[in-house]
Amino acid sequence: MTAHNVSIALPDGRAYEIRIGSQLLGEPTSWQGLPKSAAALIVTNDRVAPYYLERLRSALLARHASVEALVLPDGEFHKDWVSLQTVMDTLLERQADRKTVLYALGGGVIGDLTGFAASIYMRGVPFVQVPTTLLAQVDSSVGGKTAINHPLGKNMIGTFYQPARVIADLDSLDTLPDRELRAGLAEVIKYGPIADAEFLTWIEVNLDALLSRDKAALAHAVRRSCEIKAWVVQQDERESGLRAILNFGHTFGHAIETGLGYGAWLHGEAVGCGMLLASDLSARTGRMPADFVDRMRRLLERTSLPVVAPALGVERYMSLMRGDKKSEAGEIRFVLIEALGRAGTHAAPDDLVAQVLETHGGA
Amino acid sequence: MTAHNVSIALPDGRAYEIRIGSQLLGEPTSWQGLPKSAAALIVTNDRVAPYYLERLRSALLARHASVEALVLPDGEFHKDWVSLQTVMDTLLERQADRKTVLYALGGGVIGDLTGFAASIYMRGVPFVQVPTTLLAQVDSSVGGKTAINHPLGKNMIGTFYQPARVIADLDSLDTLPDRELRAGLAEVIKYGPIADAEFLTWIEVNLDALLSRDKAALAHAVRRSCEIKAWVVQQDERESGLRAILNFGHTFGHAIETGLGYGAWLHGEAVGCGMLLASDLSARTGRMPADFVDRMRRLLERTSLPVVAPALGVERYMSLMRGDKKSEAGEIRFVLIEALGRAGTHAAPDDLVAQVLETHGGA
Repeated sequence: MTAHNVSIALPDGRAYEIRIGSQLLGEPTSWQGLPKSAAALIVTNDRVAPYYLERLRSALLARHASVEALVLPDGEFHKDWVSLQTVMDTLLERQADRKTVLYALGGGVIGDLTGFAASIYMRGVPFVQVPTTLLAQVDSSVGGKTAINHPLGKNMIGTFYQPARVIADLDSLDTLPDRELRAGLAEVIKYGPIADAEFLTWIEVNLDALLSRDKAALAHAVRRSCEIKAWVVQQDERESGLRAILNFGHTFGHAIETGLGYGAWLHGEAVGCGMLLASDLSARTGRMPADFVDRMRRLLERTSLPVVAPALGVERYMSLMRGDKKSEAGEIRFVLIEALGRAGTHAAPDDLVAQVLETHGGA
Repeated sequence: MTAHNVSIALPDGRAYEIRIGSQLLGEPTSWQGLPKSAAALIVTNDRVAPYYLERLRSALLARHASVEALVLPDGEFHKDWVSLQTVMDTLLERQADRKTVLYALGGGVIGDLTGFAASIYMRGVPFVQVPTTLLAQVDSSVGGKTAINHPLGKNMIGTFYQPARVIADLDSLDTLPDRELRAGLAEVIKYGPIADAEFLTWIEVNLDALLSRDKAALAHAVRRSCEIKAWVVQQDERESGLRAILNFGHTFGHAIETGLGYGAWLHGEAVGCGMLLASDLSARTGRMPADFVDRMRRLLERTSLPVVAPALGVERYMSLMRGDKKSEAGEIRFVLIEALGRAGTHAAPDDLVAQVLETHGGA
């Protein structure tokens, strides 16, 4: 299979490539042109390391005299201060200088954490995203949002910091648990309603191929997702406007994740359910017809994503969502679908939000 | 006294003002044009708060409906993870949104910490520097370097993040302890050898006025220091080259601070002593005549800054300096004076560094 490359070019001249294809980890050209340095640190987790760490380390030893690895425990629960400090301690104990390159080998947790660490170590060292989950390949590894969680809110602490490159090796999806594949598809589905009606139809037609991990189907899904994300990020790196549409389903979704405690639901599962609620809110506020909600529900059900929200109660949801980053002066802002392929950020009447939660199990 | 303003204009269009003068805290025009928001958080310490917190809070209540304050314990020892997390916890507990403005009221520790917190809270909220020490007014509040310390090195963790404005109220120097005034003068003295030979002469002539806190002398010293710093930062915000000259005296100085434990010496004291050592290294490497070292020593002695380095031993100094951010692949990089008013970053033979340490008490 040929590699598919997507480029992100920011207005100030910064630019980087997202390389998408098979057998990229062991391919020397994947790493050509990246910053050279004596030392590199791979940050990964204990589930990904047994499969891919040595393959990546071998490839990088051609570029760096020393390639160390830090293997963290797996899971959203560990996207926290403790892990961040562990990365800092590791770098300082090894006297890593400010040319040291960090490689994030894993899913969204590893990517967000490693990117954040790279952005603050000595005020910034280069880093490379090597996403091994579908969710990370189509979303979190692209666009430069880095973060850790806080007990009071998800991704509340972080930076905007772009990677030097993204290497999305589709082969790493072979070892992805089925539940995570489906969670990743939630973020793929997201790009349809917010930006590309045809892509939504393509996903509906090709969902079985995606679920059976057909490489050509996955390659198209990853590439089209990255193209849309790159198009958005190029216009609005720091989320002063347009970029917020990428958070479709995330206002409800983050409330679910924080309310249940990190890790109970996968991020993509919470976003999947959140998209159903946000679709319904789009309908109840008169922006979309009711059959759009049914269409989203069918697609989510076929993907085995949850369509019933956890019963945290309306008050708890409201309180959690008021703490969302998009909120301003206590007013919750939702990403709503305005037409198929177009989204925007809007406030919504509390009673309609409550109706949505009551209809879908959240109350 | 008329206010003196210095502007910093970065190549990408970002720009901000440094306002220098008397009675600026209570002056409404000081705050005009800054980002408006419902909520503001003043971060300060328990030594500055009794003098200036209510004055600043009163002034800001004209702009923000809610002005909260977080009063941290004073001292370099507290420029750490714990304080950073306290700022994050405070913001999240108050559900501060991403328009919230942070005000750093204090010296370099408060400014560096608050700037870092502002840069990572929800991936960045605006902040204003309100430096109350001479050191912060002439150096740390200007130029957008933020940081906390790590047990293995000073300022190792941080970001480049520019303030929206710097308000340097010279009246806040009235309550500054004498030892801190002298420590701040070390950073003023620094600007002479690295960038402005005439300014070095001006300091020598006006040192008694500065030490007696003559407002006109202080105004000139702060303004000229900020002009030089602005000139450097505008050319090299992220220290890819020129900006490193601002670290004259800091390679030895940081080793002293880390080696003795944070807070034993004030930062300016360590930099003062470090400048003497770096001046001597400039002489021993053939860049400057020996009488320059004597000239620096006399000026530092008149300022009551330490001219004898703590006896940590050559090996310990070397090890600490190899961990400096300017080091590359274990090679220590020193800022050396090349001619009066011009500096550059250079490696130096270990035996000459050892001679310098042996000569000035460090061995």
